[in-house]
Amino acid sequence: MGDVAILGVPHDKNSSFMRGPAQAPAEIRRVMHAGSANLCTERGRDLGAQPNLHDVGDISFANSADDFAHITAVVDEVLKTGARLLTLGGDHAITFPIMRAVAQHFRPLTIVQIDAHPDLYDELDGNRLSHACPFARIMEAGLVDRLIQTGVRTLNPHQREQAARFGVEIIEMKDWTADALPAINTPVYLSLDLDGLDPAFAPGVSHHEPGGFTTRQVLDLIQNFPAQIIGADVVELNPTRDPIWMTAMVAAKLAKEIAEKMLEGVEGRETG
Amino acid sequence: MGDVAILGVPHDKNSSFMRGPAQAPAEIRRVMHAGSANLCTERGRDLGAQPNLHDVGDISFANSADDFAHITAVVDEVLKTGARLLTLGGDHAITFPIMRAVAQHFRPLTIVQIDAHPDLYDELDGNRLSHACPFARIMEAGLVDRLIQTGVRTLNPHQREQAARFGVEIIEMKDWTADALPAINTPVYLSLDLDGLDPAFAPGVSHHEPGGFTTRQVLDLIQNFPAQIIGADVVELNPTRDPIWMTAMVAAKLAKEIAEKMLEGVEGRETG
Amino acid sequence: MGDVAILGVPHDKNSSFMRGPAQAPAEIRRVMHAGSANLCTERGRDLGAQPNLHDVGDISFANSADDFAHITAVVDEVLKTGARLLTLGGDHAITFPIMRAVAQHFRPLTIVQIDAHPDLYDELDGNRLSHACPFARIMEAGLVDRLIQTGVRTLNPHQREQAARFGVEIIEMKDWTADALPAINTPVYLSLDLDGLDPAFAPGVSHHEPGGFTTRQVLDLIQNFPAQIIGADVVELNPTRDPIWMTAMVAAKLAKEIAEKMLEGVEGRETG
Amino acid sequence: MGDVAILGVPHDKNSSFMRGPAQAPAEIRRVMHAGSANLCTERGRDLGAQPNLHDVGDISFANSADDFAHITAVVDEVLKTGARLLTLGGDHAITFPIMRAVAQHFRPLTIVQIDAHPDLYDELDGNRLSHACPFARIMEAGLVDRLIQTGVRTLNPHQREQAARFGVEIIEMKDWTADALPAINTPVYLSLDLDGLDPAFAPGVSHHEPGGFTTRQVLDLIQNFPAQIIGADVVELNPTRDPIWMTAMVAAKLAKEIAEKMLEGVEGRETG
Amino acid sequence: MGDVAILGVPHDKNSSFMRGPAQAPAEIRRVMHAGSANLCTERGRDLGAQPNLHDVGDISFANSADDFAHITAVVDEVLKTGARLLTLGGDHAITFPIMRAVAQHFRPLTIVQIDAHPDLYDELDGNRLSHACPFARIMEAGLVDRLIQTGVRTLNPHQREQAARFGVEIIEMKDWTADALPAINTPVYLSLDLDGLDPAFAPGVSHHEPGGFTTRQVLDLIQNFPAQIIGADVVELNPTRDPIWMTAMVAAKLAKEIAEKMLEGVEGRETG
Amino acid sequence: MGDVAILGVPHDKNSSFMRGPAQAPAEIRRVMHAGSANLCTERGRDLGAQPNLHDVGDISFANSADDFAHITAVVDEVLKTGARLLTLGGDHAITFPIMRAVAQHFRPLTIVQIDAHPDLYDELDGNRLSHACPFARIMEAGLVDRLIQTGVRTLNPHQREQAARFGVEIIEMKDWTADALPAINTPVYLSLDLDGLDPAFAPGVSHHEPGGFTTRQVLDLIQNFPAQIIGADVVELNPTRDPIWMTAMVAAKLAKEIAEKMLEGVEGRETG
Repeated sequence: MGDVAILGVPHDKNSSFMRGPAQAPAEIRRVMHAGSANLCTERGRDLGAQPNLHDVGDISFANSADDFAHITAVVDEVLKTGARLLTLGGDHAITFPIMRAVAQHFRPLTIVQIDAHPDLYDELDGNRLSHACPFARIMEAGLVDRLIQTGVRTLNPHQREQAARFGVEIIEMKDWTADALPAINTPVYLSLDLDGLDPAFAPGVSHHEPGGFTTRQVLDLIQNFPAQIIGADVVELNPTRDPIWMTAMVAAKLAKEIAEKMLEGVEGRETG
Repeated sequence: MGDVAILGVPHDKNSSFMRGPAQAPAEIRRVMHAGSANLCTERGRDLGAQPNLHDVGDISFANSADDFAHITAVVDEVLKTGARLLTLGGDHAITFPIMRAVAQHFRPLTIVQIDAHPDLYDELDGNRLSHACPFARIMEAGLVDRLIQTGVRTLNPHQREQAARFGVEIIEMKDWTADALPAINTPVYLSLDLDGLDPAFAPGVSHHEPGGFTTRQVLDLIQNFPAQIIGADVVELNPTRDPIWMTAMVAAKLAKEIAEKMLEGVEGRETG
Repeated sequence: MGDVAILGVPHDKNSSFMRGPAQAPAEIRRVMHAGSANLCTERGRDLGAQPNLHDVGDISFANSADDFAHITAVVDEVLKTGARLLTLGGDHAITFPIMRAVAQHFRPLTIVQIDAHPDLYDELDGNRLSHACPFARIMEAGLVDRLIQTGVRTLNPHQREQAARFGVEIIEMKDWTADALPAINTPVYLSLDLDGLDPAFAPGVSHHEPGGFTTRQVLDLIQNFPAQIIGADVVELNPTRDPIWMTAMVAAKLAKEIAEKMLEGVEGRETG
Repeated sequence: MGDVAILGVPHDKNSSFMRGPAQAPAEIRRVMHAGSANLCTERGRDLGAQPNLHDVGDISFANSADDFAHITAVVDEVLKTGARLLTLGGDHAITFPIMRAVAQHFRPLTIVQIDAHPDLYDELDGNRLSHACPFARIMEAGLVDRLIQTGVRTLNPHQREQAARFGVEIIEMKDWTADALPAINTPVYLSLDLDGLDPAFAPGVSHHEPGGFTTRQVLDLIQNFPAQIIGADVVELNPTRDPIWMTAMVAAKLAKEIAEKMLEGVEGRETG
Repeated sequence: MGDVAILGVPHDKNSSFMRGPAQAPAEIRRVMHAGSANLCTERGRDLGAQPNLHDVGDISFANSADDFAHITAVVDEVLKTGARLLTLGGDHAITFPIMRAVAQHFRPLTIVQIDAHPDLYDELDGNRLSHACPFARIMEAGLVDRLIQTGVRTLNPHQREQAARFGVEIIEMKDWTADALPAINTPVYLSLDLDGLDPAFAPGVSHHEPGGFTTRQVLDLIQNFPAQIIGADVVELNPTRDPIWMTAMVAAKLAKEIAEKMLEGVEGRETG
Repeated sequence: MGDVAILGVPHDKNSSFMRGPAQAPAEIRRVMHAGSANLCTERGRDLGAQPNLHDVGDISFANSADDFAHITAVVDEVLKTGARLLTLGGDHAITFPIMRAVAQHFRPLTIVQIDAHPDLYDELDGNRLSHACPFARIMEAGLVDRLIQTGVRTLNPHQREQAARFGVEIIEMKDWTADALPAINTPVYLSLDLDGLDPAFAPGVSHHEPGGFTTRQVLDLIQNFPAQIIGADVVELNPTRDPIWMTAMVAAKLAKEIAEKMLEGVEGRETG
């Protein structure tokens, strides 16, 4: 039986419009322990009492020469212990350096991305590492075998072209139904951008794109996930837009449910 | 034909995490009369023109030696007039002293509770009267024949145990469907904790638990309620988290719809 | 092939409870261009690259003797160029002077109104031009052949009477289903009051009426609209209640989707 | 020994930019009694224990044909009992109908106005009863002998002309010092527009004009007022801009200090 | 040369009106390290580089049978190491158990309290340990030789009586001048309730009492403090009322300036 | 007689902690014209009626290869017309490229900077053009003869060293008095970072540093400025932290007062 590690990556230097996600790991941990809720998942597992679930703290960038190389190195180090990793971002740009490490440990591999945006830009404002670009970088580098995107509702011609070029499977939000996800035959890395949810449910994100998922829809997707989740991230919480911590609570809850799914995987109890 | 009375119970001393619900009755009344909406229900009844609907004001705790005994006494006094009671909380702790009085007047009796939490703790922080405990107290005292909970999404092992011990019927939020409520053969006391709704719809509560009801789902439940409602409370509005009064409007609207249902009961027109 | 013009009408002097919508056109334009999103619709049309879509700016009331006559005159001027008009309000009172012009150019005509309120009052606080009255004025003046209202959840006896008098077809919110809209055989003017949405999705409006549409429901209605849209307005955004611009983003997105539908109409590609 | 009466005037129909002050009396009373503070003044008088201080409630406009005539009539009625009146607005427009009554009972009379704006417009948007105009109306009608304005920082050419025409004495904010107020030989009506304070101290007003009084400066002015205060109003609190009730607390505190000053007057203990 | 220790006391169970201060230590630390400011004091000392300044973390109450006994024990333990203690509250109730330990180590001793309220109630709502009572308890127990209060602006008859009984020296806010503090011949424990500041500067507190200190006035008082500070607390930050963390920044800045003063004391460089 | 031009520079890519100032020019213009205030200065000049005051709009960076070169070029172009320039930022980084142009047109020249921070970092996070660095760049390039800083309250050892190296004259906030500014014998460029004000007066900035100027203090400084102002900027308004536009109003008011001062300069009427 293996472990699941939780790692904070407080990094938002590649955000294009607002900053703030660097402060998200501290906020998610604070609301998790503030006493307004407990640490149980909806199916009843008390995450406060799991010997194989570890919070390994936040990456420090204080002395980092190359932040992305540092992320890849730290993630690789965790994975070498045999643990599986649940990351609390940070903005979505961090998924590229994370995947550089994950791809060394898990293949074949599918990413399922929940996101209002495809994040497939070749570059944005001259920055090829922008949080608008990680999945272009991941696909160019061949780090995964398959990329499935859900919640998307902002495709422009350039991004449609990129999606076609990389063979990305997109289930647009306007076409979503409870059974829309295709069959998946590989382990999955789940990348959850909170702006995939409707701003009504997750106002504390940098980019409001109305018309997204309800929290319950995302909970259903996680609880009934049709494949093993071997890694995940929850990104783009922006505490500067979250005055009463409502979105931090959403991030905490979704992270708890994902953690349970990942624990089932390492315990060999998952059947999806 | 009997009466329906509306009573405010501005009490939040047993709240575990935040205070604020003591200010809720004043806020609910203010938004009801502020001129942004009318007093009609969705099915067209003008509550401003119902001779048998009375607002009997707020309980005062200024000279109260034992707040809970005082609540029970005031409620009993109202019920003795033959009226049925719709209470505006206050936190959820008040439902226990309310039920001590209600149980003297209506039996057999079922409680239908809408709530993110089962509120079945044996004690919290040493307080057996905490707003996390009322339904443990109610069941221990045998004040009702049956307790049905909906919207619940925070069950931990202790509360599952308590639910089993008291025979509580729980329809967890993750399993909710429009026809999930079982048949009910007794009159019903409806206890509506606003945190049963998703925080997107009711942000102004002390405990945000994402993944809850939409306002429309609760409206549907009330409008099509499958039994007679002989008493009800709307609790846990926290005005300190409700800067533009959005949740106060939700509380006011749900209270109006419940009041109509209760009026139908006293008028003998209800068939549910 | 014709044009579609976007016109701001920053007017809220007939609002009964709060003011603010006069500032909405500036806010909607600002968030559209702030860089947090792109100008593409969900079906992929880049509105920033449409030669036949024009923003004709805001009406100025600086030297206006009769604001409503001025609105009618400006709208008429735009329509005389052959363009179709998408208006950004302003409160809902402006729909009456707009329709006085529109009715000169398009007949037969149906209005489809999305709104929490029927806005059929004969007068409010002595003001017959109140934002609570425009559809009473429109129907009295015979400006359209048919009025269909959706999202309504505040009918009182007076408004039910007015609706009966004018033959308004109302699909109340409590009865809404995805296929509730009746068949429509004429071109349509779509009047979208943002309070038709639930306050969770559109908090930035003057009148919160819980229990409304999700943003996705309105998007579905627009994207699958069963008739040609020859004119439209998006009204009642109140920036004074929209601190993180969440509702302005909803207004902007819905306006974009409506604009696309209208463009399809002038291009002769729409088949609804 | 006479009485001091507190009267709410929930009226904001003559506000030019935002509405909201109609909800102020309810908010001021709510925060006064919410339990976060006591009812003592800074000099130690417990206003909760003054037999000659009465809250006479709010004026109702439900059946009012002419709101301003109604205000004048109600105020006159109160003054006829021999009481002095402290009014909680409402917007500043109400000071004109109040003074029509006050001038019948107290002459000679000086108004001391604390305000960011002189409110001397001849008309605004065609409305001669606008909240921008009350002091033009009062001076035209000769209702007082002298008008002294403090805190003013928005004088434009038209208002400078009006001030000259009416002989208004203005101590502009930029020239304010602790001893700037001239000697006053008559009783005074104190008209306190909360926007006279800097928005840092009183954000909950419709018109933010930076550079105003601190709360302490206004407290000093009231506590050391150099004449007898025989009437007063506290106006322009806008609860829609006061999410954590900070300005309502300022209004409540200033009202308490003014009430004490007025009580000293009726008790004959004031020496100013 | 001794040490200065920083200790968080996340405790607010004795708050009478709102809760929230239990979350303050985490918030103060987060904003201190968020990257929006540096760790230097205004006189240039970099607190991030002081070998004798230690953050010893937060007290945990998870297994506490008697929270106040636990606070006293933990503080005593820290003081026994020879360190001086700067506490981050928590509500003001914690100052009593803190002083029970401090009084064992430092005598003679004067408390200088900055506060809108004297906190001298004999009991509040039946709770003698309420945050409204700590200085009554401290004086009754004879834990200090002298108590000087500044910023006070809410004295009622009961509290005036208590102050007289205990010989408390109060410089009321209305009488404050830069040189109002009397000479002090003993070491000082500085107890800083953030509501001593005006709500304009510190909105994030449970009790808004307008008319208080500016931040600069408190900075001046600390920087020119006329005695050695051997212990201090910064209490009553309520993060639930601090949406953009403005008050957390004030708490952090004042704590930094106090820490510098305390460091000067242990270094023997202070001359005040 | 010359002209004064107002130019928006919506640029915040060099902000280190938050973004948002790129949206400031639009917000400042919107509140200036929203109808809540007039366009007169405190000394009575109507800026809406000045033929030699021009708003030349915002710089567009849509096709900019090098944003800073573009800023310098646009500013140079404006100055070549003989106009003097008042810039609305944007973050403080823009002052460096602005000064590259200004220095070509006005020498000798003194900068008076109002700011919580000296902005003298050699680099921040590897970025030598960071908004923490502009005055290091300006001094290195010898663009001005003298730099005087006021409001500063965050000096760390590195910045003290930089200040010494460049001969910067700093009047720290803790030492500020109304006559603290030294005599100035050259024309002045006034660079106003809104965080020089206390966060109570200007909460809508990225970096809250308590203990700053009141709005009135800055108004006094501007209105009595002891030298001719030949250029100015108002920077660091962050609309994402300004929910009710309070800080935008401060920015607008200060910009108006500066504009008047600059107009007096071109009109030859200034004597300072």
